[in-house]
Amino acid sequence: MVYEEISYTVANHVATIMLNRPDKLNAFTVRMMTEMIDAFDQVDADDEVRVVIVTGAGRAFCAGADLESGTASFDAAGLEDSPVRPDGSLDYSKASARDGGGLLTLRIYRCLKPVIAAINGPAVGIGATMTLPMDIRLASDGARIGFVFARRGIVSEAASSFFLPRVVGISQALEWCFSGRVFNAAEARAGGLVKDVLSAEALLPTAHALAQEIAQNSAPVSVALLRQMMWRGLGMADPMEAHRIDSRGILSRGRSKDVAEGVSAFLEKRQPAFPDKVSADMPDYFPWWEEPEYH
Amino acid sequence: MVYEEISYTVANHVATIMLNRPDKLNAFTVRMMTEMIDAFDQVDADDEVRVVIVTGAGRAFCAGADLESGTASFDAAGLEDSPVRPDGSLDYSKASARDGGGLLTLRIYRCLKPVIAAINGPAVGIGATMTLPMDIRLASDGARIGFVFARRGIVSEAASSFFLPRVVGISQALEWCFSGRVFNAAEARAGGLVKDVLSAEALLPTAHALAQEIAQNSAPVSVALLRQMMWRGLGMADPMEAHRIDSRGILSRGRSKDVAEGVSAFLEKRQPAFPDKVSADMPDYFPWWEEPEYH
Amino acid sequence: MVYEEISYTVANHVATIMLNRPDKLNAFTVRMMTEMIDAFDQVDADDEVRVVIVTGAGRAFCAGADLESGTASFDAAGLEDSPVRPDGSLDYSKASARDGGGLLTLRIYRCLKPVIAAINGPAVGIGATMTLPMDIRLASDGARIGFVFARRGIVSEAASSFFLPRVVGISQALEWCFSGRVFNAAEARAGGLVKDVLSAEALLPTAHALAQEIAQNSAPVSVALLRQMMWRGLGMADPMEAHRIDSRGILSRGRSKDVAEGVSAFLEKRQPAFPDKVSADMPDYFPWWEEPEYH
Repeated sequence: MVYEEISYTVANHVATIMLNRPDKLNAFTVRMMTEMIDAFDQVDADDEVRVVIVTGAGRAFCAGADLESGTASFDAAGLEDSPVRPDGSLDYSKASARDGGGLLTLRIYRCLKPVIAAINGPAVGIGATMTLPMDIRLASDGARIGFVFARRGIVSEAASSFFLPRVVGISQALEWCFSGRVFNAAEARAGGLVKDVLSAEALLPTAHALAQEIAQNSAPVSVALLRQMMWRGLGMADPMEAHRIDSRGILSRGRSKDVAEGVSAFLEKRQPAFPDKVSADMPDYFPWWEEPEYH
Repeated sequence: MVYEEISYTVANHVATIMLNRPDKLNAFTVRMMTEMIDAFDQVDADDEVRVVIVTGAGRAFCAGADLESGTASFDAAGLEDSPVRPDGSLDYSKASARDGGGLLTLRIYRCLKPVIAAINGPAVGIGATMTLPMDIRLASDGARIGFVFARRGIVSEAASSFFLPRVVGISQALEWCFSGRVFNAAEARAGGLVKDVLSAEALLPTAHALAQEIAQNSAPVSVALLRQMMWRGLGMADPMEAHRIDSRGILSRGRSKDVAEGVSAFLEKRQPAFPDKVSADMPDYFPWWEEPEYH
Repeated sequence: MVYEEISYTVANHVATIMLNRPDKLNAFTVRMMTEMIDAFDQVDADDEVRVVIVTGAGRAFCAGADLESGTASFDAAGLEDSPVRPDGSLDYSKASARDGGGLLTLRIYRCLKPVIAAINGPAVGIGATMTLPMDIRLASDGARIGFVFARRGIVSEAASSFFLPRVVGISQALEWCFSGRVFNAAEARAGGLVKDVLSAEALLPTAHALAQEIAQNSAPVSVALLRQMMWRGLGMADPMEAHRIDSRGILSRGRSKDVAEGVSAFLEKRQPAFPDKVSADMPDYFPWWEEPEYH
C-alpha cells in the first residue's frame, strides 16, 4: 500500500508514523484511517520494529475530522453500501455504520508494540481520541487538545467512552467532553492526559529516548504480552482472570530462551540480547481472549 | 410535589438543587431523598435546564443521615413493610430493604444533564457519598468531608463501592473509609475527590461559570448522550462495547439538525444555536442498555 | 507452622509480617510464599489483629524471585507434579502451573483487615507486585522499585495485570513494565504507587500511626466489609451491583450492636468500644460473591 496521507519510516528499532497532510493540519480522512491501520499491521509483522512513535507533520498533530464537505461532513448517506435506508432509518449493524475512529483505535489497542504519541501541536476531536489507546502521550508546549464533539452536535467516538474515563478519570473526562473546550498542554498534563510537556525541539528526542530505553533492554515477546495483559486487565472483573493469564505467562516464558538470556545478562551485569521474536515465538496460549464481534 | 427539605430553582439554563434544612446542617432524611429524586426527574424533563448545581443552605452541605432517633437511627424495624421478619431475620429482596442513599445516587447516575456539586461546608456520610455520581465536585475552603461509616459501626452506602474507588482510586478510597476521618478541602483536592478549592464567596460563581460554559456552547442531546456514554464506559469490559455505541451515535447524530448547526457555527466562527431537545430528540438507539433490576 | 523466612508479631492490634532473609535481600521463595499465606490466615482468624503491616528485615523490602538456580530459576520442569509434559508441552490447568506470586496476592485480596506496605528498601519484581493488593503503600526514601519482568524475558505476575493499571493508571503501568526500569521513591510517589515517602526512621512509625487511627476508631466488622466492598467494587460493571451489597450492609449492620455503640459514642463525643468480632459476627450475606476457580 502506497501511503499518501501518512509517512512510515523505521530506524533503530523504532517505527515513526507521521500524519502527513500538513497543509490541512493533518485533518483525518477515511484514507488516513486506512493507511494508519495498514501501518500498524506492518508494525506488528516486522520484528525490526520494537516501538512506535505517532506524530504529525508540520505545525499540527491532527485537527480532527476533515470538514471539507461542510455541514454534511458527518452524514453517512453517501457512503458505499450506506447504512441509511431509503426511508431514512438507520441500519447500525452494517459495516459502513462503524465509526472509522473506532476501527483505528481498536487496531491500536491490539498492537503488540509500545505506542508513544508525540503530540506536536493541535490535537482535536479524533486527533485527541486516537491517542487514547496509545500507551504514553508526550506533548509539546504548543499542543492544544479538545474533545470538541458536543460543540459540533455529535458525540465522542473512537471507543473513547472506554478509554477516556480510564485514562484521565471520569470527572475530568466528563468536564472536557461537556464543555468541548480546547485546552493547552499544561491543562492536559494536570488532568493526567499527557505524561510530560516539552519544548517543540525536545519532543521527538524525548520520545526516542523513551523508545530506546524499551528497545535496548526489554524482550520483545515479553513486551508484546505485557501490553495485552495490562490493557485487557483494565476490563477484568476479578484478579483471578489475571492470575490465569499470568500463570500461563510465567510457566511458558519461564522455559523460554529469552528468560535464560535475561537472567544470564542480569547475573553477568551486561545488556541482554533476546533471541525470541514476536513474529514467531508468541506462546501457545496467545491470544487468550476471543475478539468480540461488531454487531 | 411541594419541597420542604430542598429548594429548586431554574435560571439561565441552570437548575439549582439546594439542600434546605440549615438548622439541622441539612441532615439527610427519607423525605429529602424523595424530594431530590423528584427534582432530578424535573431536571431531565425540562429542556430549559442544561446543567444542575447541587449545594447546601447555610453553613453545611449535608451533615449525613439524621441521627435524631439516636442509636436506632439505622434500624429498619419500624419501616413500612419492614424487611425485618418477626423472627429478626432479614429479607434483603424487599423494596424497603433498599438503601435510600443508593436510590438517590442511582437516579443521579441516570441523569441526562451535567451535575456539579458545590460543597459549601461539611459533607459527611451520605453528604459525601451523594456527590460521587455527580460529574464535577468543587469545594469551599470551609468544606469538611468524611466517609465516617466505620466509626459508626455501619458500612458505606449510596453505591459508593462502585463510585468511590473509580473516582479517587482504590488506595485513597480505602484509607478514607478505614479511618473514617473527617478531612479538609485541601486533602480532598490532593486525593482527587474535588476539582478545586475556592473561597466561600467564589464557590457558586465558579460553579455557575462552569455551567454556563457548557450551556452556551454544547448541544444538549450530545451532552446527554456523552454523560451516559462515559459513565457506562467505566463498567465496560472491552472497547468493542464502546465502539458499538459510538458508531450508533456518530451515524445518527451525524445526520441531525444539531450537527449541521454545529459545523456551520464552527466554520462561521459564531456561537451555535442547537435545535434538538433532550425531551424529544434522543436517538432511536437510546437507551442502549438494560437497566438492571434490584433483587 | 514455624516461620523460617518471615517473622510474625502482634502488638497493639497490629500484626507485623516481616520478610526475613536479610542476607538475601529477602528474595522470594516458595517457602516465603507459603509462610506469608499462612500469616494472612492468622491475621484473619485473630480478632486481636485489626491492621497488618508488611515490611522487610534489613536494608531491602524484597529483591524479587530468588535467582539462586541461575537461568533455570523460572523453569517449572523440576516441580512436584510438574505441569511440563514429557513432550515439553505445558498443562496450564495443573495446580503446579499456578504462579506463586498470584497465590499470595489473591490471598491478600481476600484479607479482612487493612494491609499497609512499609517499603523500606528495594522492592523488585514480585517484591513490587506483592504490594499491589495491599491497601496503602508507604516508602522510605531509600526504596527502589522495579517491574523488571521484560528485562528478564518473562512477564508480570501476581495478578498485577488486574492490580497495576487500576492502582497507577494504564499509562504509568505500561511505561514501568515496558522499560523494566528500577526507579526511586520520588518517582513511585509521582506515579501514584506510594502514598508517601519518608525517612528510614519515620517509615514504621508513620505506618503504625495510620494503623492506630484505624484500630482505635473503626468497627472491625465494618472495616472487613468495607475492604471487600471497595476492592470488589472495582470489578463491578454497574452501580446496581454495589447498591445490592450496600443495601444488605446498611440493613444488617444498622441493627447491630456496633451501630448502637457507634452512634452513642458519636453523640456522647467519646471513643467507641465496638463489641462485634470479625471471627463471629460477619453478617449472614457475607461472602456475597462466589470465589472464581482456577482453570
